[in-house]
Amino acid sequence: MTHTTTDAPLVLRHDDNGVTTLTLNRPQARNALSQGMLRALLDAFAAIAADDSVRVVILAGAGPAFCAGHDLKEIRAAGYARDYTEKLFADCAELMQAIVKLPKVVIARVHGIATAAGAQLVASADLAIATLDSRFATPGVNIGLFCSTPMVALSRNVAHKHALQMLLTGDLIDAQTALRFGLVNELVPAEQLEAATRDLASKIASKSLLTVAIGKEAFYRQAELPLADAYAYTRDVMVANLEAQDAQEGINAFIDKRPPVWCGQ
Amino acid sequence: MTHTTTDAPLVLRHDDNGVTTLTLNRPQARNALSQGMLRALLDAFAAIAADDSVRVVILAGAGPAFCAGHDLKEIRAAGYARDYTEKLFADCAELMQAIVKLPKVVIARVHGIATAAGAQLVASADLAIATLDSRFATPGVNIGLFCSTPMVALSRNVAHKHALQMLLTGDLIDAQTALRFGLVNELVPAEQLEAATRDLASKIASKSLLTVAIGKEAFYRQAELPLADAYAYTRDVMVANLEAQDAQEGINAFIDKRPPVWCGQ
Amino acid sequence: MTHTTTDAPLVLRHDDNGVTTLTLNRPQARNALSQGMLRALLDAFAAIAADDSVRVVILAGAGPAFCAGHDLKEIRAAGYARDYTEKLFADCAELMQAIVKLPKVVIARVHGIATAAGAQLVASADLAIATLDSRFATPGVNIGLFCSTPMVALSRNVAHKHALQMLLTGDLIDAQTALRFGLVNELVPAEQLEAATRDLASKIASKSLLTVAIGKEAFYRQAELPLADAYAYTRDVMVANLEAQDAQEGINAFIDKRPPVWCGQ
Repeated sequence: MTHTTTDAPLVLRHDDNGVTTLTLNRPQARNALSQGMLRALLDAFAAIAADDSVRVVILAGAGPAFCAGHDLKEIRAAGYARDYTEKLFADCAELMQAIVKLPKVVIARVHGIATAAGAQLVASADLAIATLDSRFATPGVNIGLFCSTPMVALSRNVAHKHALQMLLTGDLIDAQTALRFGLVNELVPAEQLEAATRDLASKIASKSLLTVAIGKEAFYRQAELPLADAYAYTRDVMVANLEAQDAQEGINAFIDKRPPVWCGQ
Repeated sequence: MTHTTTDAPLVLRHDDNGVTTLTLNRPQARNALSQGMLRALLDAFAAIAADDSVRVVILAGAGPAFCAGHDLKEIRAAGYARDYTEKLFADCAELMQAIVKLPKVVIARVHGIATAAGAQLVASADLAIATLDSRFATPGVNIGLFCSTPMVALSRNVAHKHALQMLLTGDLIDAQTALRFGLVNELVPAEQLEAATRDLASKIASKSLLTVAIGKEAFYRQAELPLADAYAYTRDVMVANLEAQDAQEGINAFIDKRPPVWCGQ
Repeated sequence: MTHTTTDAPLVLRHDDNGVTTLTLNRPQARNALSQGMLRALLDAFAAIAADDSVRVVILAGAGPAFCAGHDLKEIRAAGYARDYTEKLFADCAELMQAIVKLPKVVIARVHGIATAAGAQLVASADLAIATLDSRFATPGVNIGLFCSTPMVALSRNVAHKHALQMLLTGDLIDAQTALRFGLVNELVPAEQLEAATRDLASKIASKSLLTVAIGKEAFYRQAELPLADAYAYTRDVMVANLEAQDAQEGINAFIDKRPPVWCGQ
């Protein structure tokens, strides 16, 4: 568990066979991303990045909601002071990018609502599974604070008009709409959420950790390149990947019709 | 109303409580974008950009169609002269970018057909509502003039294969397909089009004008940046946004469970 | 037909009224992309690029599958040697870009499975039609060799979370899912696949070859540019396109309500 200066752990960590579940644990505040929560998440992801026993991360929320975004009461209590807000949004942007840069897959497990920076966590995750009755919004426009950082992740997941609809109206969209937009991968009944997410995580945890790390890094990097550069880059990634023991073992096992044994190298 | 050198106003302007409706008014030519029409639209958007009383713009078409694109008869009458065509496409590209740069939301209200540069207007708008029986096409390929400028807006709204299907076949797609592709946000029966668009416009007009302007500009700008740059930029946008009175009022009002009173600063 | 050093042609070429069908012809190996197959395809596309009689290309597979990707047995037989793998992925990346750069439309005609570099062929084609029971995957993660080059094409066709779902799980998706993701344009019953693809190809073959070439090149080029640059570029494309005889003929024919007669200039 990642402890903060208070007694209650803001982020719960549970490890199970290579699958680590991080649970936002401010249920009374719908897991609002206070400074402490952002720090606890940054610490948790830093620890996981360096932990070879972790293969896949599930990001979840305790209580009735996944995450309601930033902690507005804390922002007001800080008197909207610039040194506070600069630190807040620097940490938040760092967190979202830490998820993208993490050399392990991150799956958002969503129930209740995921709004503002909470929706951004979903968009920043590599994959997302949500309950049939979950809802999503980027409602900053309703409180005079446009969801300008959430839009970075949102607009890299969904079509422009879908993103703008969410950003300009601030309205909640239902789970089916989020699925149609491409913000989440799969919807399940609430009572199946944990099992469905665990099954997906276990499946990915059974792959070569090295291969997944190579692939995840390459995915986000090539996505920002022109086509010719993307091919020049990934061509080299493939050649290097094929020199890894895991690739040669995987191909040999496939041809020999036996399960591969990964060594992570 | 924006008047041109002819008696008939090519673009009708109607202001109602912060919502300005611009209506293309060449119904007999299915609102084809003649030089005069492009100029009238550019003038109208320039006036609106500087008009603090305008919060949201609805772009609509008079008569049986939204807009059938460029005015082919005028192009032929000009003898395909290069100075004419250079001016035409410079004005057209300027218009489409004026919509994107306008610090107010633009909603396309579509009925009948929206083809070629007409479909481009829909794609260039921030949001679009269309009738259930509306249809869309980029049919330039059928007349030897590929829809190369419309594709700029189209391909930033819909997936590559969807855009290429429209561009290479030139075929009309129905409203349901346009919705599935992400070219429009919502479909309504024809008799509800005006009310549905007005409701959406009024909802957005009730937000802080400053906040919407900040968000719209940030959306299109960050969309063109690599992830790290997009976060560095929007992080600063958020910090600046939070120093605005409207943001602090919005957050205070939200916490105090009262409606916000925007001052636009 | 394109012949290789073996007796069997690896790629069959059939020309019919401007529509050229290239058929991958290693049915016993599910049309795996061996070095020889890549070379045969590169040669075929090079010949087609310079062949004015070809207006549209259909890319198909002989036997039970469209294409199962790289030839893993050949890779193993080469001892994973670096000079072999470097050549292999250089040729593969060149092939995929040759499809994009070809000044004619390429339609993938998909049945059975299209996996790994086979799915990449589908994604690299301008358009794709598939059978209702076709299936798609990027399963490299299952054999320790992430589909890092296929992802370049895949992620330029489908949303990030859809691409990552395919890449990280390695699972097959069914045709309906591929349609929803935007990886293919249309699904038809297996017995209608040939006719439906031929109809689409014939429709596009009836357009001005020059116009299609202008449009295809402009599409992929503008897609990589910021909005202002994309408009500056396509504006010039439109002006130049309008100076072509085909454009003036097309517009004149449209206004005069007669079929156009293309001269290809």
